[in-house]
Amino acid sequence: MNTFKKSIMHVGEMASGAKLTVPIYTYECRQSEAPSVYIQANMHGAEVQGNAVIFQLLELLKNCDIQANITLVPYANPVGCNHKNGEYTLGRFDPITGVNWNRMYHFDESVIAPFAQKNIDASEAEIQANFQQLLLDQIEQKLDHNIWGLTTGQRIAYQLQRMAHQADLVLDLHTGPISSKHLYCPEYAKESANYFDIPHTIFIPNDFDGAMDEATFCPWWSLQQAYKALGRNFVMGQGAFAKESFTVELGSQEQIDLDVAHEDALGILSYLQYKNVLNSAKFIPQKMTRYACYLKDYKALYAPMGGMVDYLAEFGKPLAAGEPLARILRMDNYGDGDPLHNVCLDKAVLPILHFASASVNQGTELYKVFIDYFEI
Amino acid sequence: MNTFKKSIMHVGEMASGAKLTVPIYTYECRQSEAPSVYIQANMHGAEVQGNAVIFQLLELLKNCDIQANITLVPYANPVGCNHKNGEYTLGRFDPITGVNWNRMYHFDESVIAPFAQKNIDASEAEIQANFQQLLLDQIEQKLDHNIWGLTTGQRIAYQLQRMAHQADLVLDLHTGPISSKHLYCPEYAKESANYFDIPHTIFIPNDFDGAMDEATFCPWWSLQQAYKALGRNFVMGQGAFAKESFTVELGSQEQIDLDVAHEDALGILSYLQYKNVLNSAKFIPQKMTRYACYLKDYKALYAPMGGMVDYLAEFGKPLAAGEPLARILRMDNYGDGDPLHNVCLDKAVLPILHFASASVNQGTELYKVFIDYFEI
Amino acid sequence: MNTFKKSIMHVGEMASGAKLTVPIYTYECRQSEAPSVYIQANMHGAEVQGNAVIFQLLELLKNCDIQANITLVPYANPVGCNHKNGEYTLGRFDPITGVNWNRMYHFDESVIAPFAQKNIDASEAEIQANFQQLLLDQIEQKLDHNIWGLTTGQRIAYQLQRMAHQADLVLDLHTGPISSKHLYCPEYAKESANYFDIPHTIFIPNDFDGAMDEATFCPWWSLQQAYKALGRNFVMGQGAFAKESFTVELGSQEQIDLDVAHEDALGILSYLQYKNVLNSAKFIPQKMTRYACYLKDYKALYAPMGGMVDYLAEFGKPLAAGEPLARILRMDNYGDGDPLHNVCLDKAVLPILHFASASVNQGTELYKVFIDYFEI
Amino acid sequence: MNTFKKSIMHVGEMASGAKLTVPIYTYECRQSEAPSVYIQANMHGAEVQGNAVIFQLLELLKNCDIQANITLVPYANPVGCNHKNGEYTLGRFDPITGVNWNRMYHFDESVIAPFAQKNIDASEAEIQANFQQLLLDQIEQKLDHNIWGLTTGQRIAYQLQRMAHQADLVLDLHTGPISSKHLYCPEYAKESANYFDIPHTIFIPNDFDGAMDEATFCPWWSLQQAYKALGRNFVMGQGAFAKESFTVELGSQEQIDLDVAHEDALGILSYLQYKNVLNSAKFIPQKMTRYACYLKDYKALYAPMGGMVDYLAEFGKPLAAGEPLARILRMDNYGDGDPLHNVCLDKAVLPILHFASASVNQGTELYKVFIDYFEI
Repeated sequence: MNTFKKSIMHVGEMASGAKLTVPIYTYECRQSEAPSVYIQANMHGAEVQGNAVIFQLLELLKNCDIQANITLVPYANPVGCNHKNGEYTLGRFDPITGVNWNRMYHFDESVIAPFAQKNIDASEAEIQANFQQLLLDQIEQKLDHNIWGLTTGQRIAYQLQRMAHQADLVLDLHTGPISSKHLYCPEYAKESANYFDIPHTIFIPNDFDGAMDEATFCPWWSLQQAYKALGRNFVMGQGAFAKESFTVELGSQEQIDLDVAHEDALGILSYLQYKNVLNSAKFIPQKMTRYACYLKDYKALYAPMGGMVDYLAEFGKPLAAGEPLARILRMDNYGDGDPLHNVCLDKAVLPILHFASASVNQGTELYKVFIDYFEI
Repeated sequence: MNTFKKSIMHVGEMASGAKLTVPIYTYECRQSEAPSVYIQANMHGAEVQGNAVIFQLLELLKNCDIQANITLVPYANPVGCNHKNGEYTLGRFDPITGVNWNRMYHFDESVIAPFAQKNIDASEAEIQANFQQLLLDQIEQKLDHNIWGLTTGQRIAYQLQRMAHQADLVLDLHTGPISSKHLYCPEYAKESANYFDIPHTIFIPNDFDGAMDEATFCPWWSLQQAYKALGRNFVMGQGAFAKESFTVELGSQEQIDLDVAHEDALGILSYLQYKNVLNSAKFIPQKMTRYACYLKDYKALYAPMGGMVDYLAEFGKPLAAGEPLARILRMDNYGDGDPLHNVCLDKAVLPILHFASASVNQGTELYKVFIDYFEI
Repeated sequence: MNTFKKSIMHVGEMASGAKLTVPIYTYECRQSEAPSVYIQANMHGAEVQGNAVIFQLLELLKNCDIQANITLVPYANPVGCNHKNGEYTLGRFDPITGVNWNRMYHFDESVIAPFAQKNIDASEAEIQANFQQLLLDQIEQKLDHNIWGLTTGQRIAYQLQRMAHQADLVLDLHTGPISSKHLYCPEYAKESANYFDIPHTIFIPNDFDGAMDEATFCPWWSLQQAYKALGRNFVMGQGAFAKESFTVELGSQEQIDLDVAHEDALGILSYLQYKNVLNSAKFIPQKMTRYACYLKDYKALYAPMGGMVDYLAEFGKPLAAGEPLARILRMDNYGDGDPLHNVCLDKAVLPILHFASASVNQGTELYKVFIDYFEI
Repeated sequence: MNTFKKSIMHVGEMASGAKLTVPIYTYECRQSEAPSVYIQANMHGAEVQGNAVIFQLLELLKNCDIQANITLVPYANPVGCNHKNGEYTLGRFDPITGVNWNRMYHFDESVIAPFAQKNIDASEAEIQANFQQLLLDQIEQKLDHNIWGLTTGQRIAYQLQRMAHQADLVLDLHTGPISSKHLYCPEYAKESANYFDIPHTIFIPNDFDGAMDEATFCPWWSLQQAYKALGRNFVMGQGAFAKESFTVELGSQEQIDLDVAHEDALGILSYLQYKNVLNSAKFIPQKMTRYACYLKDYKALYAPMGGMVDYLAEFGKPLAAGEPLARILRMDNYGDGDPLHNVCLDKAVLPILHFASASVNQGTELYKVFIDYFEI
């Protein structure tokens, strides 16, 4: 039976001096060339299902033939995880600054081209080792050698990123507000999307917007492109560039379900087996219709008015142009106006998630949908 | 077709001077002796389904033979209704003071005995008229003649209470956090609980704790008891004391469903028809098992530890002693402790509602359940 | 040099399993009959100056001749202490429930009369020991023997109260929002108010409203009155009833000042020396005009309108009837209404504190003032 | 006496349907070539002093010889202005999304070069008129022709920006948390900084980061540079490019002071007189030492540890390298660690503002300071 080693990482301090800690579970593979896997959960406070998935992964991995180093990090953000505003957990941002916890990772594009220039003739193994070291050095530099300090969220993010940079496969477990399961997948790693048990995938380009998945694959993608500009071609997802990183959206926030987490874990193991992390053939991806679209076609719809929303559109079920996504109730208009307003779009969409509360202001993000989507 | 008159009540001002307003829909019955009905919704910000129920009531009442004056008040609390903390609406209390919005109504028990003494020989009609006037005078006094002012919540509550005091039947539409439908019913009005389409009823005593239902029936119940102490007997729910007041918990907060609201409205019309508010026979209470318990047996269970909760117990389904209500996940204990903890009770219960989020601190209210419950 | 022993009390757990801890500093006196002192700070999250005062007390007490057992507890409420909403610390209530952290202490009046009856002939020493044990037993019962659990705040409050019940002199260090220094003092302990360096005192009666000071002295005061009803007379503040408890309001919240804390600490030592906790004569109360009023004359003034407030009245400076306490700016009225509104009262007052923000809703607590105050 | 016309702008709706409105005060100058001035306040909820300044400007402008069109907008953000979290007003971001209210303005750099190309030979008057129209068209497009809608904050920001784009001189009145008065000034408008009564100025480059001031001057600065690249030279601040825009930080948030607002208004009138908005010579800038630095030298210092901060450094008073800015109290370290920690920097700085609360997490922004500053 495999044993994961537990350790505790110290990522900050509160006003009372209370230490902010994160538990880390690691499995070290005996093989020298083994790939590395990094999986974290709960960077956004309300998105807790990933913790249950890590629980089920640990249970399932006990009896697997593991061919990789694996690091599992639940409760990745102890500030967000424990921060209540009313009955709910404040989901997405630092309560002091408003900055999204998943937009604080580091990527300095300016180092890419010089590295490629300098290492133009290096072997793939050297490239991999040296560039990884460069990424880690930058994180160390940020963490330790700055008299001006860094923000609460950066201190957490950089310590997580230090682990992620050492991995080849990175999964950041999130959820939507009220949501279907969906996957953010780099465009170059399309094939992998078929191995998760997730019916909706968004293919994302090489644009860094601060999130963990981007922070992990964008440096390598950019490096591959820098080499290409210098006339040396590598294939993303292979050799030194065998880096894949995903944001896995496990459904809705503010809830855990251990049985569903078991299924979620099986889907992740299916992907890991495909990537030879497991020496087995038992984790078969479920048969399902898998839809995908490009990030530019993953659209947010903002409430055209304030009101109280009866969300109608089902997730994952194609909705024809003109069909209502939602009805907005406006009791203040009863008797002398229009108390019910249907929200429609003039094109066919695939609804993926909606806002967490019936009560919306004009301009609240109501739905996110795929347009121009396709089966994969 | 019946027409409801719309008016706007001004209940306060925000820092920018923005006026806090509440829409009011009234139907005035031509008959002089007609009873009066008062229904409000959304006193707690996140409890919005009642607004949809008032919409459906207005639609359904268009074509009824109404034998009463009816006042319907959605969005009763414009501060709470519009107050977001993160994605959710701050549910239960004034964000500045923490005071529960539904604990600010007025009741001054000290006026009861002197009133009974003074009106010991009055006719029932006089008692009804004079006591109602006394209650209204007290509210006016609070609203208008106090150099020290009153709190934001009192100003709203008293203006609502002024309308409620003029009614014989009062319904305050709330919801639980994540919840079954349930009803708070005065002990003397037990019979009425059978006319709502609500499977769980809590019978409440004559104790004023600040809520709207209590604020409406406690004065009359106390008056009846004061007369009894003086040797004059009246029956609660009849004649001058034909006052009934309920808190109707319509299910879960943060959501509206117009179809369910239609059903909710039918149940309310069934009760109103029973009370001769409607001259019809078409609103028949649904056949269902109705469980009830006394308020002392409606128990809250607080989380025995911090953690993330997989809520297991189904609402309205009797749960045997020792069966788990919930499993609490504690990933920080994985590997060197107990990562899963079952929450059980040593007696049979009927689960009614649970907390709105998986994430709980030690001591967060986890479940509310009936013990020693019975069919009605 | 005196040494305080440090220990850590575990008062709860957050969702991630993070332990809520409180540091405790104790000095144990060698004398067997020594009195006990209990001082805590920061029960309300934003009221932090008391922590700095405990720091200065620890520094000053190093070189005093201490004749008592002393327990000092900074950061008494680790949830409140670390809970940010925007840049500020959520001050006064549990963010989940809205319940004021300083209204959760325990007092069960129903045990008083039976105790007096049963111990009618007991010696003073027996009364003191037995009644203290009864209070402690009740707290233990609450903490440990309840299948339904207790709230997050009760778990913290009861553990603090267990320490306070073992003390003869209890100080609960708070602050106002923006505030002068003031003191809540039991009516029977008036003389003691002259030994603190605090210019404003509120004399409070024997009514339990849930706060620490009341939770500590009300049981004894009630017991003394129960004995009196049975014909046995004791003097509050003497012998078995030598219990005093104060809420010390150190000025404004959201700030610490170590130099002012040194002065605050000197004032507390002046009181403790007067109570023979210190064998010295060096801590002399400052000469100042000390004003006091009874609790019924400590009045809150609520904003008569929404707006932005220019607070004018100086704390501690008598304000004549008709003089403005504040000007409220209402820019939305500029040009077609009254953009400036003076807030006045028709009686002379002594302003003590005001709201923490310029922006107020209609009904926000604007000022607290003494009326019918007097010099002591 | 000059009269300002009052109008009401509708910028959104809340969940109850409550309209979000902003009052606007406009003075229309009879001269055809008159410049335009736009001044707004309170975009961040807690930064209220600007409303009082607009009050004083309106009072003072009554009797001035005004040579310009002037638009004054207090309460620019009615969501932020009225949003309480505890006693304080949530300052800086949308409570639902966390997005800073002052980072939502619009600027599309991609239109600049094509415009210059197309209007390479246009007269200055044509350039001014056409480019302003282009900016306004873009805003209209955003506001009205987007089936996906826009966020709550964008809807507010774009409506304000529509007014600002029509002005030559734009002032956005803000405050810091606890802060000295300071000014953000475009590098090309340095001379103007001497006419405000503000001792600290930050010179900012042509980088758009979403704020109002940048949104107003960056398009013109970029246009001037685009022309320069095409060989046609204009001087920023003159002719068609006579656009200036400032963020004026009026001191600390959460407070208004009408007397200080009078002084603040005099300083603004001094600037406006210098810009020939007023035909007078009576508004003379105060004599004071004015310090400035470039934006890159305006540095934030993040708390090196959690704790409670005694802020020591005075605003505007040069602090030598090694001198403490603050002391951080850590009572949990008393007895077995270091309870007091001095926060120092290894270079000389000019402290400008500090955090609003004593309680900080590790990584909370503690101070903002000038380094490499100079007198102007």
